[in-house]
Amino acid sequence: MLQKYSSADISNWDRYYRANFISCLSGYKPAMIVGSIKENGLPNAGIFQNIVHIGAQPPLIGFINRPRAASPHTIANIERSGLYTMNSVHRKFIENAHKSSAKFDLEVDEFEAIGLKPKFREAFSVPFVSESQIQMLLRLEEVIPIQKNGTFLVIGEVQAVWLDDVQIEEDGFIQLSDNQIVGSVGLDGYYSAQLEKRYPYARP
Amino acid sequence: MLQKYSSADISNWDRYYRANFISCLSGYKPAMIVGSIKENGLPNAGIFQNIVHIGAQPPLIGFINRPRAASPHTIANIERSGLYTMNSVHRKFIENAHKSSAKFDLEVDEFEAIGLKPKFREAFSVPFVSESQIQMLLRLEEVIPIQKNGTFLVIGEVQAVWLDDVQIEEDGFIQLSDNQIVGSVGLDGYYSAQLEKRYPYARP
Repeated sequence: MLQKYSSADISNWDRYYRANFISCLSGYKPAMIVGSIKENGLPNAGIFQNIVHIGAQPPLIGFINRPRAASPHTIANIERSGLYTMNSVHRKFIENAHKSSAKFDLEVDEFEAIGLKPKFREAFSVPFVSESQIQMLLRLEEVIPIQKNGTFLVIGEVQAVWLDDVQIEEDGFIQLSDNQIVGSVGLDGYYSAQLEKRYPYARP
Repeated sequence: MLQKYSSADISNWDRYYRANFISCLSGYKPAMIVGSIKENGLPNAGIFQNIVHIGAQPPLIGFINRPRAASPHTIANIERSGLYTMNSVHRKFIENAHKSSAKFDLEVDEFEAIGLKPKFREAFSVPFVSESQIQMLLRLEEVIPIQKNGTFLVIGEVQAVWLDDVQIEEDGFIQLSDNQIVGSVGLDGYYSAQLEKRYPYARP
C-alpha cells in the first residue's frame, strides 16, 4: 500500500518520532567514534553517524555537528587542538560505542566510562580507539555553518590511517562487512552488512 | 597486524586505488537515486552515495556533488527547477540503479536507459522511481561550495514522502533491512544489511 506523508504531517509529529523517521529515510549511515581531547586534557569519545565522504585527493571526510548549544564539546575540542581521530566500530563493541553518545561531565575520562581503551600514537595529542580496526587521524580543515538549522559541516583532512588486520583489496577496496565493522540507521539502530556485489564503472 | 598509511603514501597511490580506499574508510553509505528533469524535459536519474542527514525539523538531507566540470547535470537540473526526488534502492534492482552512474547524452531518457519506470506525482514536474519503496520530494534549499576540492554540499528540504508497503514502527523507526533496501560502500560496492540492535538513549 502506498502511503503519503506531507511536510505538514511530519511537522506535526512528536519530535522523537519525527527524528527517527527522517533520519531513517536518507538510508544507512556510518558509525564512527570521534576521539578528541577536552580542555582539561582528558580524552573525549563521541559517536557520530552523520558522516560523509567529500573527496579522495586530498582525502576529506565531513560530519554534521548539531548546534553548539545542543552539542558543544566535540566541536570545541577539535577547534582547540585542530586534530581528532575517527575510529570504526566492530560488532563486538557496539554497546560501548553507543554509550559514547551520552553527555558526560567535563571531569569524566570518556574512554574509561564507555569501556574502550584510548591509544596515543606517535606525537599526536589525540586518542585513537585501540579496539578499532580502522583508525584515522584528521586535521580540521573547515567548519561550515548550515544556516537553515544551526548545524555545522565539520570537514577534516585525513593525515594518516592505521589498519589493524584489515586487508586492502587489489584495487583499494576494503571489505568492511568481512571485518564485521557495523553501521547505523536512524537514531539508535546498528546493523551488520553483507556485500551483495561490486559493479564495473558504468558506461551508457 | 597493524599497518600505517601516511598522507604522503596515500597521495602517491594510483587515483582509482586511492578513491576506493578513502571512500571505504568513512564507512557504509546510503544509495539513493536522484530524479530530476533535464533542460529538454527528459527525465534524469543519477545514483548518489555521499548523502548525509542534516536535521529533522525542518527535514533536511544533503549530498555531495562533484565539481561542476566533472558532474554538471544533476546539479544544474536541480538549480533550474528547484525540485528533485530521492528514491531508495531495493536489492532486486541494484544493477539498474548502478547504471544511472553513467554519463548519458542529453537526448537520452535515463529512466528508459537504466530500465526503471519514472512516476510523476500530483503537479510535481520531477520523476520519482516507481519501483522504490521510499520516494521523497525535495526542494533545493542551499548549495554550499566546499573550497578545498571544488565539490558542493547540496541541501534539500523534504516536502513529502511516499512509502510503498513500508511499515513505520511505533517510534518512527523504519526497518530498511527488512525491506531489503540496500546501501553502498566504496566506489562501486552494494550491500544488504541486518539490524543488530537498537539501544535506548544513552545517559552517563
